[in-house]
Amino acid sequence: MFVSDGLNINEKNHLTIGGCDTTELAKEFGTSLIVYDENEIRKNCRAFVGSIQKNYNGNGRVLYASKAFSCKEIYRIVNDENMGIDVVSGGELYTALSVGFPAEKICFHGNNKKHSELTEAVDAGVGRIVVDNLTELESLNRIAGEKGKKVSIMFRIKPGIDAHTHDFVRTGQIDSKFGLALETGEAMQGVKTALAMENVELKGVHCHIGSQIFDIDPFELAAEVMMKFIKDIKDETGVTITELNLGGGFGIKYLVDDKPEAYENYMDNVAKIVNKKAEEYSLPVPFIYIEPGRSIVGATAITLYTVGAVKRIPNIRNYVSVDGGMVDNPRYILYQSDYEVVCANKINNEKALTATIAGKCCESGDLIQENVQLPEVEAGDILAVLSTGAYNYSMASNYNRIPRPPVVMVKDGQARLIIKGESYEDIIKNDI
Amino acid sequence: MFVSDGLNINEKNHLTIGGCDTTELAKEFGTSLIVYDENEIRKNCRAFVGSIQKNYNGNGRVLYASKAFSCKEIYRIVNDENMGIDVVSGGELYTALSVGFPAEKICFHGNNKKHSELTEAVDAGVGRIVVDNLTELESLNRIAGEKGKKVSIMFRIKPGIDAHTHDFVRTGQIDSKFGLALETGEAMQGVKTALAMENVELKGVHCHIGSQIFDIDPFELAAEVMMKFIKDIKDETGVTITELNLGGGFGIKYLVDDKPEAYENYMDNVAKIVNKKAEEYSLPVPFIYIEPGRSIVGATAITLYTVGAVKRIPNIRNYVSVDGGMVDNPRYILYQSDYEVVCANKINNEKALTATIAGKCCESGDLIQENVQLPEVEAGDILAVLSTGAYNYSMASNYNRIPRPPVVMVKDGQARLIIKGESYEDIIKNDI
Repeated sequence: MFVSDGLNINEKNHLTIGGCDTTELAKEFGTSLIVYDENEIRKNCRAFVGSIQKNYNGNGRVLYASKAFSCKEIYRIVNDENMGIDVVSGGELYTALSVGFPAEKICFHGNNKKHSELTEAVDAGVGRIVVDNLTELESLNRIAGEKGKKVSIMFRIKPGIDAHTHDFVRTGQIDSKFGLALETGEAMQGVKTALAMENVELKGVHCHIGSQIFDIDPFELAAEVMMKFIKDIKDETGVTITELNLGGGFGIKYLVDDKPEAYENYMDNVAKIVNKKAEEYSLPVPFIYIEPGRSIVGATAITLYTVGAVKRIPNIRNYVSVDGGMVDNPRYILYQSDYEVVCANKINNEKALTATIAGKCCESGDLIQENVQLPEVEAGDILAVLSTGAYNYSMASNYNRIPRPPVVMVKDGQARLIIKGESYEDIIKNDI
Repeated sequence: MFVSDGLNINEKNHLTIGGCDTTELAKEFGTSLIVYDENEIRKNCRAFVGSIQKNYNGNGRVLYASKAFSCKEIYRIVNDENMGIDVVSGGELYTALSVGFPAEKICFHGNNKKHSELTEAVDAGVGRIVVDNLTELESLNRIAGEKGKKVSIMFRIKPGIDAHTHDFVRTGQIDSKFGLALETGEAMQGVKTALAMENVELKGVHCHIGSQIFDIDPFELAAEVMMKFIKDIKDETGVTITELNLGGGFGIKYLVDDKPEAYENYMDNVAKIVNKKAEEYSLPVPFIYIEPGRSIVGATAITLYTVGAVKRIPNIRNYVSVDGGMVDNPRYILYQSDYEVVCANKINNEKALTATIAGKCCESGDLIQENVQLPEVEAGDILAVLSTGAYNYSMASNYNRIPRPPVVMVKDGQARLIIKGESYEDIIKNDI
């Protein structure tokens, strides 16, 4: 019925999440409010972890892609689920280390890591640094040498796959700011350079072909291309690469009619390719990493807003304004992303109103969604926007100096605050 | 030569701003770094303040539109320049009050002010609350009544002007989340409702027709429509509206070839309309407010970045990665906005490289600008992006948990920090 199994309707005709009445959550914590469902997060974690067990005899690791939603509590949960994480900045690394996340299970990414970030990663002893380019390789080798360490690395490779998704989230093709290209020989050159270095140890290769991909084919193709590259490395250098990181990008359900593949299907089909190619090339099956982010948290959260003004412009449009907007959900103004919006306190009422949901920022483009079917709503009603778990809080801003909302985790009818809402004092704390 | 008179080139072939060598600023404060030029800000303030003096005998007020860039120091400067401010949230109000900004010179805007924000505005005694809709009018009247206060208000009116600019920044047409429409009679109904209320005093009417507008015509047309509305109010109710707020939206120079009107030209031409219509309708010339934001600060600031990886993809594209991105300048990924980008330490070198400037976020769309002509650059060079004073820091995020950069003010060769850069500790401070 909804985009997530954790969402339901109670006897009061209210939306519930993880057994909590959303209108009660709105009362207790205020709005805007972001609410995550812990059981749903853990269910998604287990789907991926289980598939590594099934397809690779456990010879692999699921890395949660932090950029989807980074905070202390999410790191505690994924650690508890026996996963590693990928981080893309010193800030994400700092957050993870602050809750004692095991450094050896952290993989550090980024197309342009700062010198300070590389240093922090080396000092922390992160498990793998995914090297993006040769400038970075040189820096890292130097930093590691200065510290008398040998650093385990992977290379980010552009496999040249076009994943047929939104331009902004296509990252595997050759025209990308990320990684080294296969076609141009740049990737092989990087491998040879790394193999000759004293302070880095090349463990594996990585690719990431895009985001919110609904087809399995491009993932299969990417696995094929990467296995071929591992064979080519063996042929050219004699070195057997033992680890393969296939990135993330698995599509999730934003709209109730979206039909993403079950995560297990991606995993099963890709595993067939990896295992087949290993046999064909007489290579050991590599240790497999995958990096789901959106698919772990995206559909597990909702955002609650209180309706303010309702503006009816005859024959033109109805605007329903809420007490958040692009500040806590910038994905509509950025990408015109689709979301389901429901009236949480009138969930089964007849949908008689077609409306645009407008945020409270002084920006015309500050909309949450257009052409939403709602019941007749009025000031004080609670709207819930579904599937806001990925790239919402993580991309939130203080535009208009609006404090960022609190974030709550629910589980079995209990709610706990996991990120405090900002205060006005927080907003001015760095102003001089 | 540059988009701002405060930018220059010194004997070292380095870009200077406000008499400061940008490479020295980068060394002292680190990058990314946002640098504002105080003299340029004050020059812009004086252009507008002077035009109110010239065209209306000083019978008006320039309100700085905070949303372009809000922090303590900018409020000190515009206060010193005898301006008021417009704020659009409790957070902006709180910031202004924290430096003792005179409440009576504050105008409070917003399409969906929260109950708490209306209360804060009434408690602070802000000069004017610009009421957006009738739901808000009712709330405000009730809040003021409970506090035994009478609150001075203006109405935000949609004059129905299409300012021929980017869809997202067109706000005066009838299909807008902001304000009351003239055509439908909604605006007149609002006026009559307000006039009958005990706890609000209707002082004036407000309109804002869009942003970054290069033509004078729509401003003239808006003034004409608003003066006609004031006449209609007089005719229908007998009440003379004494204040007219004409909003902002004056175009600024992002590219060196942009040719915005001198701010004085907008002001002079609009004043002719206002004065002529007042005479024609036998109305007193209203007290005039204008609300420049971008035009006060936009072209006065630059952002400095350090070059990291330079990636040359033969026959496809060159990527120059920098140590900031959509986190501190989201306007390219939001609006594909144009910016001039120069190499601050090789300012007059031959421009031999066509490049895309990429940010450091794990997001393919995280670009600062495409097809930029640069000299040959390498890791460690400093890039300056010009005209980043409006809607850059104010829209900044912590995506990828990247700390927001420091902001510096320069004046006559001296630099002072006005906003501290965020620390990792700041990033996790609200995580539980």
